[in-house]
Amino acid sequence: MHSTIQVGIVGGTGYTGAELLRLLTQHPNVHLAQITSRGEAGKPVSALFPHLSGRTDLHFSAPDALDADALDVVFYATPNGIAMHKVPELLAKGVKVIDLAADFRLKDIATWEQWYGMPHACPETLAQAVYGLPEFNREAIRTAQLIANPGCHATAVQLALFPLLKAGLIDHQDIIADSKSGVSGAGRGAAVGTLYSEIAESFKPYKVEGHRHHPEIIESLAHATGERPSMLFTPHLVPMIRGIECTLYAKPLAPIETLQQAMEACYADEPFVSVLPAGSMPDTAHVRGSNHLHVSLASQTAIQDKPDRIIIMSVEDNLIKGAAGQAIQSMNLALGLDEQTGLTQIACLP
Amino acid sequence: MHSTIQVGIVGGTGYTGAELLRLLTQHPNVHLAQITSRGEAGKPVSALFPHLSGRTDLHFSAPDALDADALDVVFYATPNGIAMHKVPELLAKGVKVIDLAADFRLKDIATWEQWYGMPHACPETLAQAVYGLPEFNREAIRTAQLIANPGCHATAVQLALFPLLKAGLIDHQDIIADSKSGVSGAGRGAAVGTLYSEIAESFKPYKVEGHRHHPEIIESLAHATGERPSMLFTPHLVPMIRGIECTLYAKPLAPIETLQQAMEACYADEPFVSVLPAGSMPDTAHVRGSNHLHVSLASQTAIQDKPDRIIIMSVEDNLIKGAAGQAIQSMNLALGLDEQTGLTQIACLP
Amino acid sequence: MHSTIQVGIVGGTGYTGAELLRLLTQHPNVHLAQITSRGEAGKPVSALFPHLSGRTDLHFSAPDALDADALDVVFYATPNGIAMHKVPELLAKGVKVIDLAADFRLKDIATWEQWYGMPHACPETLAQAVYGLPEFNREAIRTAQLIANPGCHATAVQLALFPLLKAGLIDHQDIIADSKSGVSGAGRGAAVGTLYSEIAESFKPYKVEGHRHHPEIIESLAHATGERPSMLFTPHLVPMIRGIECTLYAKPLAPIETLQQAMEACYADEPFVSVLPAGSMPDTAHVRGSNHLHVSLASQTAIQDKPDRIIIMSVEDNLIKGAAGQAIQSMNLALGLDEQTGLTQIACLP
Amino acid sequence: MHSTIQVGIVGGTGYTGAELLRLLTQHPNVHLAQITSRGEAGKPVSALFPHLSGRTDLHFSAPDALDADALDVVFYATPNGIAMHKVPELLAKGVKVIDLAADFRLKDIATWEQWYGMPHACPETLAQAVYGLPEFNREAIRTAQLIANPGCHATAVQLALFPLLKAGLIDHQDIIADSKSGVSGAGRGAAVGTLYSEIAESFKPYKVEGHRHHPEIIESLAHATGERPSMLFTPHLVPMIRGIECTLYAKPLAPIETLQQAMEACYADEPFVSVLPAGSMPDTAHVRGSNHLHVSLASQTAIQDKPDRIIIMSVEDNLIKGAAGQAIQSMNLALGLDEQTGLTQIACLP
Repeated sequence: MHSTIQVGIVGGTGYTGAELLRLLTQHPNVHLAQITSRGEAGKPVSALFPHLSGRTDLHFSAPDALDADALDVVFYATPNGIAMHKVPELLAKGVKVIDLAADFRLKDIATWEQWYGMPHACPETLAQAVYGLPEFNREAIRTAQLIANPGCHATAVQLALFPLLKAGLIDHQDIIADSKSGVSGAGRGAAVGTLYSEIAESFKPYKVEGHRHHPEIIESLAHATGERPSMLFTPHLVPMIRGIECTLYAKPLAPIETLQQAMEACYADEPFVSVLPAGSMPDTAHVRGSNHLHVSLASQTAIQDKPDRIIIMSVEDNLIKGAAGQAIQSMNLALGLDEQTGLTQIACLP
Repeated sequence: MHSTIQVGIVGGTGYTGAELLRLLTQHPNVHLAQITSRGEAGKPVSALFPHLSGRTDLHFSAPDALDADALDVVFYATPNGIAMHKVPELLAKGVKVIDLAADFRLKDIATWEQWYGMPHACPETLAQAVYGLPEFNREAIRTAQLIANPGCHATAVQLALFPLLKAGLIDHQDIIADSKSGVSGAGRGAAVGTLYSEIAESFKPYKVEGHRHHPEIIESLAHATGERPSMLFTPHLVPMIRGIECTLYAKPLAPIETLQQAMEACYADEPFVSVLPAGSMPDTAHVRGSNHLHVSLASQTAIQDKPDRIIIMSVEDNLIKGAAGQAIQSMNLALGLDEQTGLTQIACLP
Repeated sequence: MHSTIQVGIVGGTGYTGAELLRLLTQHPNVHLAQITSRGEAGKPVSALFPHLSGRTDLHFSAPDALDADALDVVFYATPNGIAMHKVPELLAKGVKVIDLAADFRLKDIATWEQWYGMPHACPETLAQAVYGLPEFNREAIRTAQLIANPGCHATAVQLALFPLLKAGLIDHQDIIADSKSGVSGAGRGAAVGTLYSEIAESFKPYKVEGHRHHPEIIESLAHATGERPSMLFTPHLVPMIRGIECTLYAKPLAPIETLQQAMEACYADEPFVSVLPAGSMPDTAHVRGSNHLHVSLASQTAIQDKPDRIIIMSVEDNLIKGAAGQAIQSMNLALGLDEQTGLTQIACLP
Repeated sequence: MHSTIQVGIVGGTGYTGAELLRLLTQHPNVHLAQITSRGEAGKPVSALFPHLSGRTDLHFSAPDALDADALDVVFYATPNGIAMHKVPELLAKGVKVIDLAADFRLKDIATWEQWYGMPHACPETLAQAVYGLPEFNREAIRTAQLIANPGCHATAVQLALFPLLKAGLIDHQDIIADSKSGVSGAGRGAAVGTLYSEIAESFKPYKVEGHRHHPEIIESLAHATGERPSMLFTPHLVPMIRGIECTLYAKPLAPIETLQQAMEACYADEPFVSVLPAGSMPDTAHVRGSNHLHVSLASQTAIQDKPDRIIIMSVEDNLIKGAAGQAIQSMNLALGLDEQTGLTQIACLP
C-alpha cells in the first residue's frame, strides 16, 4: 500500500460517484488518482462538477484506461452488472474493490439472477465478498479485499432491526418496513419520472410489489442474526434530494424499555449510529450531509384499539451512510485507518 | 332556503378557510355572504388573499357580527373547541352548520375530552351531528342540520379500509396505517416547525405516540362496519404543500382479486373515489387541486419471506377531499343539490 | 363550425399539451375529439395522465391519423419546427390553427431562421399569422385562421411594458428585463438539467447570452407600439413547477403616479390582467393555476444614490397565461365565444 | 489569547447561530465555550439542534451569564440593535467581537438610524469597527477588535462589482442589482410569510421600495473604490433554503475581455472567490454548504436591439459566505490563523 492511499473511481458521473468525489477529495489520507467515465472521458472533473473546481485537477478517463497497478482501492459507482465483469482481474492484481452497486450483495446466485435479470459474471468470487455494513461485519471488512456496499434502503432497514432481532426481542416472522426515500436515490440518469415537475409537490409509493433491496435485507439479516426474517418492504418517493426515513412495525417480545436498552447497548460504541431517546421523532434533515444514522423507538400506549406493535424509525442520508460514506467507512477499516477519517461532517442544517 | 344559497364562513383566514373561499366563490349556487375573522375584521378578503381579487367584494367581519338569520349554511373553519360554543344557537335558528374542526367528530364524549384536552361545551348536540363522509353516510347527510367534517388523515384511512372491512375481507384486528401528509395540514399559524427552512428537504414522522385522528377513525369505522377495528396509525410530514398518501397493511381473508372486486363494487357509483387497477401506484399529484381520492391494492407475491398482508394505498388532496371539498360535498347533499356541484376541478398537473 | 367545437391537439404529451387537455376537458363548448402523439399512439390519455381518468375516454392517435375534416380547431403543442410543415394543409381545409410553439411568432424570416437554426417551411403563411396576445391584437384574433401563441417569458415582459411604451411614458431605448421561470417551461423531455436533484434548492440564470423570446418581444412590441424598443433580457430558473416573475427596469418620462394611471387605464377592461396598487409585491403563487397576470409598479424613493428608474413587476402562470390558457383565450375570440369561457379558475392557493 | 481559541456566541438559536455552531464545532483551533439564548437557557444545544448531538456538550446559558473574561472572541448572532448595547463593555475587556447583525455596518449614523429605526447605542465605537469583507479589508481585519460582518445580499453585490468599479471599467452612476435569496435569510422566527406553504412553489420580489442592505452597499463600495456608486437594488425570495444569486447590469467602459481580465486579476489570490470563464452561468447549488462565491460576466452580443450593458452574476451560500462563514474567515484573520481554517468544506451537491 502507498503511504497516501491511491484511489480510483469507476463511473464517477452519477450522484454516488459525485458524493465519493466530494468526500474523498476532503479525505486526509487519500489521493484521488483516477476516475473513469464512458461519456465524459477527457473532460476535467470540475467541468462537470463546478463545486469541485479548485479542489481537484483530475480528468475523467475512459473505463479501459484504468491503471489498476497504480491503485490501492477502486470504487465502482456504476450501474448494476458492470463491476462483476472487471472485479476478478482487479482482485488478482491485489487491488481492494468496493462496489457501490448490487453485484456482490447477495450470496444466493439464483436470487440475485432473479432480481437483477441477468446471469452473474463471476459467481465464484461471491464467496469472498464481504457485505460492507460495518455495524455487522467490522472484523470481516478489515481483512476483506472485495466489499459489497449495502443498498440505501437496506442500510436504514437493517440498522433499525438488527439489535432487536439479534436479541430476540421482536417477532422475526412479522415485520413491516415502510420506507421513504429522497429522489437522488434514483440516480442522475435523464428520466421523465424524476424531473422536477414530476416530483415536486408529489408523494407516491413505488415498486410496492417487489424491490431489489428486499431480498438483500432478508439474506443479510438472516446471516447477521441467525434467523431468516419475514418482512414486508414498501418504498416511497419523497420530494427531497437526500434522505431516507424508514418506519418499521414489529411485534415486541418484551417491554419497550427492554428494547430501548438493547438498542442503546448494541450501538453504544458505534461512531455513526445514534439511538435517540424513546418517543423521539427522527428527521432526515438532522443527518443531511452526514454519515450518521439516527434510530428511535415508540409505541402507541394511549390508544386502546391497536395491535401490539413497536414502532422503529430510522433516518440516514441515502448518498452518505446509504452509499458513498458507508463505502469510505469500509475503506478506512480495510486499510487500517481510523474508521471515522474523512467522515466527520456535521449535518448541513438548515 | 334562499334560491341562491347564502353562506357564511367563520374563521376564514387559515388554509381550510382559504380553500372554502376559493371553492365557494366558484360554486354556481352559492352566494358567499359573510366571513368572519378575529384578526382581520374590516379588511377586504382580497387584501389577505390576492388570488381572490376581482372575484369577491367581501370584507372580513368580527365573529360577533355574524348575522345567522341571513344565512342558510355556516362553515366553521376555526381551531378545535370554537364551534361548539356557538353551534346550538345557530341550530336553533334553523341554519345548517358544517364544522371543519373536530368538535362534533366523536360521539364518545370521554374520548373526545381526553384527546382534545377540554370539556365539551354542548355534549347534548353530539347525537344529532352527522359524520360528513358521504361515502358512508350519504342519506344521513341529506337531512342533517349539523355535519362534522372528517379529519384529513381520517378520510384517507377510512375510504381505504371501508369496503374491505365491511365485506369482512381483512382481519379487522390487525391493521397498520402509515400516513404521510403535506404541510398545509398543519395550518397557517406562525410556527417555527412549519417554516420553509425546517420542512423543505426533510421528512419525519410526527405524533407517532398518538394522533387525534386515530380515535376518530376507530369510532367511525366501528359505526360504519359494525366491528371496532384495531389499528396502528402513524403520521409523517412530507415537504409538499398539499396531499396525503396513506399506505395500509392488513391480513387478507380472501385472494387479492376478491378484495379488488369488493373495492371496485363498493365505489362503482361514487363520484369522488376512483379504484385504480391492482398494482397501480397512486400519486398525490394526480389529485392535487381536486376532490378525488384514488385507492389501489397491491401484494408482494414475488417475495418469499414475508408476512401475509395486503397493501392498500390511498391519496387525496388534504385541503379538498380532506377538508373544504368534502365539506362542500356534504353541503350539496344537505341542500338537495347535485353532489358534484362546484367540485369538478381536474387536478392541476404538473 | 359545429355547435360543439371539435378540437384536436397535436403533440399532447408535454406539459403544455397536458394543460390544454386539462383546460379543454372542462371547457363547456368544446369536444376534445382527437389528440396525437408519436410515442403514445393507441394508449388512453388517462393512462399517461391519471388525473384525467374519468374525464376523457380519448386515446392518443398517430400524428398521421389526424382527421382535420372533423375538426374546427387544431392546437399544436409540438416542439418548434413541427407545425410549419402541416399548417398550410390544415388552413386549406378551413381549420383554425393555434400553434403554441414558435413557428409563426416572428414576421422576420431571417431573424426566425437565425434563432431557430432551420429554414422556415412555409414563409408565405407568416403574413396571415396573428400573434395571439389578446391584449394587443384582440380584433385581429377574432378573424384569424392562424394564431401564433406567444412565448411564456414574452407574455410576462410585453404585458408589463406595453401600456408604458405605448403612452411614451418610459424611455424605449433602455429597458432591462430580469425574468425568472418555473421549471415546467423547460418541458417534459427527459433531461439531466431538469431533474429534481438538479433543480431543487438551486437558482441560476440560463441562456443569458441570448434567448429566443428576446427577438420575439422586440418585434411584437415594435409592432404594437410603433417604436422598436432596446432591451436586455435575462432568464433565470426557479425551483418551482409553475410561474414566471419578471422584474423590469426602465427610465420613467413622467412621475410614477402618471405611469400607474396609464397602466390602470390600459388594462381597465382586460379580464385577465390585474394592475396592483403601486408598491405592491406580486407573487407567482397568486396566479398559480389561473389565466391571470398581475402587474405592479414601484420606485426606490427612499434611496438617494440610485439611477432614475421605475421598476415594473409582472407574474403569470407560465403554463396558462403563458401557454395553454392564452391559446384558449384566443380560441374563444376566434370562435366568437365569450373570451373568458373555460378560463375562470381561481389560483390554487396555497 | 488562549492556545485554543475560546469562543462565545450570543443568540445561538437562529439560522446564522446554528451555522456558527456547526462550523465552529468543526474548527480545529476553536473551543466553543459559551452560547447564550434568552429563550432556551439551560437546555443542551443538542436538544434544539439534534444534528450536533455527540459533537458538543454545551448548554445554552442566559445572555446575562456571558463570562467574557474567559473568552477570546464573541460572535453576536442576535437581531439588529442588540449587540450595540453590550459591545463597548466587551471591547473594554479586550475581547474581540464579531457582529453578524447590522449594528456596526454603517459609519454614517444618520443613515443607520433612518434605516434601522432606532437611535444607535454606541456611536463612538463605530469608528473602530472594521467592515468584515476580507476581500476589501483584509489588513484592517487582522488588527481589528470589532468586526461588522456584512449583510448577505451586500456580500454578493459588492464582490460582483468591486473589481470593475475599482478599475473604472463600468459606469458607477448607473448600476442595477437584481438579487434573489433563499428563505433562510429571513431567519428562524415564527412568521406566516416564511411558512413552507407560503414559500414553496412561489417566487416574489420583496422590499423593492428599499432594503437595508442598499445603503450598506453604497457606503462600503464608496469607501473601497473611492467613488460613491448609484445603484438600484431589488431583492426577491426564492423557494429554497440556502443561496443568493445576484444578476447585475452596468454600462461597460471597456470590452468584456478587459473586464474579465480585471475580475480575474483582482481575485487571483482570493481563496474564497472564483471567477468563472466569461459566459458561464453560476448556480447557487455549486456553492451550497461552502464558503465560496462564484462570479461571472456575460454580454448579449447576438441581440441587436439592446442597451449597452455588461451582465455580472454572483452566487454564494447566504448562511456561509453571506454570514457565518465570512465571520469565521474574519475571525481567522483577526487571530492570526490561516484564513481558510475550518472553511474548506466542498459544496454539498446534489
